Amino acid sequence: MIAYDEEYKNLAAGVESGIDRYLPPATTAPPRLHAAMRYSMEAGGKRLRPVLVLAVSKLFPAASVTDPLPAAVAVECIHTYSLIHDDLPCMDNDDLRRGRPTAHKAFDEATALLAGDALLTHAFALLATQYSALPALAQALVADLAEAAGSRRLVGGQMADLLAEKKTDATAAELDFIHRNKTGAMIEVSFALGARCAHADAAALEALRRAGRHLGLAFQIVDDILDATADSATLGKTAGKDAKAGKTTFVSLHGLDQARRLAQTETDAAIEALGHVKGDTAFLAELARSFARRAK
Amino acid sequence: MIAYDEEYKNLAAGVESGIDRYLPPATTAPPRLHAAMRYSMEAGGKRLRPVLVLAVSKLFPAASVTDPLPAAVAVECIHTYSLIHDDLPCMDNDDLRRGRPTAHKAFDEATALLAGDALLTHAFALLATQYSALPALAQALVADLAEAAGSRRLVGGQMADLLAEKKTDATAAELDFIHRNKTGAMIEVSFALGARCAHADAAALEALRRAGRHLGLAFQIVDDILDATADSATLGKTAGKDAKAGKTTFVSLHGLDQARRLAQTETDAAIEALGHVKGDTAFLAELARSFARRAK
Repeated sequence: MIAYDEEYKNLAAGVESGIDRYLPPATTAPPRLHAAMRYSMEAGGKRLRPVLVLAVSKLFPAASVTDPLPAAVAVECIHTYSLIHDDLPCMDNDDLRRGRPTAHKAFDEATALLAGDALLTHAFALLATQYSALPALAQALVADLAEAAGSRRLVGGQMADLLAEKKTDATAAELDFIHRNKTGAMIEVSFALGARCAHADAAALEALRRAGRHLGLAFQIVDDILDATADSATLGKTAGKDAKAGKTTFVSLHGLDQARRLAQTETDAAIEALGHVKGDTAFLAELARSFARRAK
Repeated sequence: MIAYDEEYKNLAAGVESGIDRYLPPATTAPPRLHAAMRYSMEAGGKRLRPVLVLAVSKLFPAASVTDPLPAAVAVECIHTYSLIHDDLPCMDNDDLRRGRPTAHKAFDEATALLAGDALLTHAFALLATQYSALPALAQALVADLAEAAGSRRLVGGQMADLLAEKKTDATAAELDFIHRNKTGAMIEVSFALGARCAHADAAALEALRRAGRHLGLAFQIVDDILDATADSATLGKTAGKDAKAGKTTFVSLHGLDQARRLAQTETDAAIEALGHVKGDTAFLAELARSFARRAK
């Protein structure tokens, strides 16, 4: 699928330039804070969530689409803040992220904490200021993103994840809550934000949200599989952490084969949901397939 | 000034009921996270910022004012998140806040970190959902609050404050940056949000912002004076921290008498700015005077 790889690269390159454009310069006062924000945002990674925002908006006729790039960058700001805080010593205490020292290792804990706070806040500043000419769109984007990033979803999922780590007998229902929220919320909202920028109708918005929910779950199951089977060098982050911590995952709960089948089922469901949207969904369907068979 | 005290109490009581109404129930999953959010939000305190939002909107004819209570609660969510994170061991490492154990003492560091993240996010969720019928207002409120809470202002002020603590020779200009941003930004934006909810014109909005800037500076100078002169039991937080840490403050830089004169000058300037707004500003003027002579 050369066309797929090229399209992904193009979208990801658009995200990189958007990050440079929509983050304050590293020299902004206080420079240490802004350098830390950029350090973490510019660490690369797959850029899956912002790529999804851009790809979803491309399902719709270009003339009716409002530039989704600020929304894409806003989603990446939230994702990056959650990684920075998740890596802190009082959380997962991780030294390696995207193949580089984590923010609190490269700077210090206080700077990492504040850089995360600043990126979280900046996501909403971006939406409110870059879509100010279309206040109803700005309002809808902020509402969607704040809900997905909030205490019932992203942050709630992280809290539940931490509590589950302290016991070795988390149930399938608990694991489902964690994954639908900790990982799923931001992938789902990426579909929603792309649809919002394209002024999609309610039916298309709902179908795309559903695709995002299934893709998010598939993504997390594969993440669990990779943590159990790949090495740190390949992943660019510490591998085997889950088993070492005795943590309940899709793999520990269902076994490797069943986890692989679950990932396939969720991937198929995501592709099925995409079928309810007009427009060329080939790229997004291939993205779903590609992430299901990824090696890192 | 019985009328002033009574009015402040009434507004603060409105804030308390707003906090209860606009925060998720403590039983929301995961309950530990939502209990921690409410623990810190319900710890009381002066409620200065949300009271300002409500008081400013009351300067305008009631019929033209959109309910400012969700905006007031949003401001308090941001203020409380910033206290929770500021109290963490990697920041100020404080055990006492508003006369009670800090969030990471009452719960644990990870829960406190996440409760802060959740409150920050919830502020924007509140604005976007509670003002969704007036998207232009919602957009303006989010833009103002995100700017005030962002990397150039609130978070930037905290970063600069941390860096200044590591040296004993911070300049007046550095101190000014810290105070205008760390403390001033949220007080200034409280005036702006109250004015926004009242659909104030540009001139009134600017005069009120100016009043907020001066009041914010006066407030911080008095805070420095109290840290140098009051005891922990009176303050409800650790006193004498600044001198102990060798930290540059208005008092260490200018001496106690000059700090008191500066507080008076800023208070007078705030009251002067209020004079440019139609409506009865007696309560806000008395509030400025009252906070200048407060003992805690």
